[in-house]
Amino acid sequence: MRPEPITSPKNPLLKEIRRAIAKGSLTAEGLAVAESFHLLEEALRSDCAVEAVLAAESVKSTIVAHVKGLSRLRIFTLPDALFAQVSSTDSPQGVIALVRPPTWTLEHVLRGHALVAVLDGVQEPGNAGAILRAAEAFGASGAVFLKGTVSPFNSKAMRASAGSVFRLPFITGLEDSMLHTALEQKHVNLFAAVPSTGAPVTDVDLTQRCAFVIGSEGGGVRAELAQRSIPLRIPTTGVESLNAAVAAGILLYEARCQRMRKP
Amino acid sequence: MRPEPITSPKNPLLKEIRRAIAKGSLTAEGLAVAESFHLLEEALRSDCAVEAVLAAESVKSTIVAHVKGLSRLRIFTLPDALFAQVSSTDSPQGVIALVRPPTWTLEHVLRGHALVAVLDGVQEPGNAGAILRAAEAFGASGAVFLKGTVSPFNSKAMRASAGSVFRLPFITGLEDSMLHTALEQKHVNLFAAVPSTGAPVTDVDLTQRCAFVIGSEGGGVRAELAQRSIPLRIPTTGVESLNAAVAAGILLYEARCQRMRKP
Repeated sequence: MRPEPITSPKNPLLKEIRRAIAKGSLTAEGLAVAESFHLLEEALRSDCAVEAVLAAESVKSTIVAHVKGLSRLRIFTLPDALFAQVSSTDSPQGVIALVRPPTWTLEHVLRGHALVAVLDGVQEPGNAGAILRAAEAFGASGAVFLKGTVSPFNSKAMRASAGSVFRLPFITGLEDSMLHTALEQKHVNLFAAVPSTGAPVTDVDLTQRCAFVIGSEGGGVRAELAQRSIPLRIPTTGVESLNAAVAAGILLYEARCQRMRKP
Repeated sequence: MRPEPITSPKNPLLKEIRRAIAKGSLTAEGLAVAESFHLLEEALRSDCAVEAVLAAESVKSTIVAHVKGLSRLRIFTLPDALFAQVSSTDSPQGVIALVRPPTWTLEHVLRGHALVAVLDGVQEPGNAGAILRAAEAFGASGAVFLKGTVSPFNSKAMRASAGSVFRLPFITGLEDSMLHTALEQKHVNLFAAVPSTGAPVTDVDLTQRCAFVIGSEGGGVRAELAQRSIPLRIPTTGVESLNAAVAAGILLYEARCQRMRKP
């Protein structure tokens, strides 16, 4: 586990990392680019395989000490200036971990007494990450990223997930038709939070298997999906709607509370 | 109300707007720089004085038609390229409204059966805005931005507030000591959501006058403030904490639900 130096901006690994960051996706090898100490920690405590770590020279010794004893992990060191060119953040921490994320199926996402967040076109990576984090926090079985939704492997989404991206089962790029088929098979009710129509969420039985559609920041839930969903609403005053992650958090919290109260 | 053209990047008004956007604050004249059609709409429906509107040439006619009949409003038009230089967003909508925000005092924020969000060092403007939005949605009396917290007049915070910044009473830059004095005078309990300690929020009586401290994304609630607060927690599993706006939204929602249930 001797650190290998990288000095050229044309290094193929750096190019691939930059490409993944720019696209907001996994690398060609299917690795998540995790850009902070916290995410490295979270990947390790989540039993994800950390396949490589890139360390800026100035934090090299800290990182080497930290991942000491992890076999099959390659460490690359970079001059700080070169590291800054690769990082997506304005104030990089000097560490990038390449993490093999778990592979999930719809079976995982809908397992047991399903509680699912369905993201329908959510664009803000910060919101997507915060939704994953809330979903794990309130015992959701998983999340679905419908086609057209930001990737959970976007750098900012991963940071906002605070590590839940490495633990909560989710699938991405799903078509509506596949979602409906799977939900029907598993007897999972699909709810959509629609401002001003639907029953107040406190009056809806969320102890049954359920999935919540969270619409995009600009347009809300698409009409064709709303039509296939049971409408409910979070009672509010004064505002047209809530932030997508706040709305998702409240729905999941309410479901969790109802399930805890159930004898 | 004949539109006045601006053609020079050195125009003093443009310079002042750029400065306010860069600082994430009001202009020297105390005006909020609202950078979208939606925020212009929200300012108008909130009865805030819109003192000027800057319109990119390509959307000039739409905007002029829209604000027709509003007296005392100056309209400035700019070439699209110049407008793009002023805007803080990557895809500007071509409209910037200069809005005179309402002036609030602690009396307003703590009025009646107080329900208050206290932001302690929240740095993400998106979170700060989403908290204002949730606070209005759940009938909060107001919000407090303690010293060291991002400004609610940051461009992104205003957009994330979806207009609540023009309606919900709040004060900024408050010192802890003034907060404590005011809360004591008004008999408002101060709660701090602290992971892993404190009573579950569902077991705490939030029908009394209450304020919730929301800590910063990185460090949570400062120790000296946590010590002066009643600890409570949102029951979660697997994660260390929730996103700041999600946590604030859930606390305010829970308070609202308890108050609705109370006979």
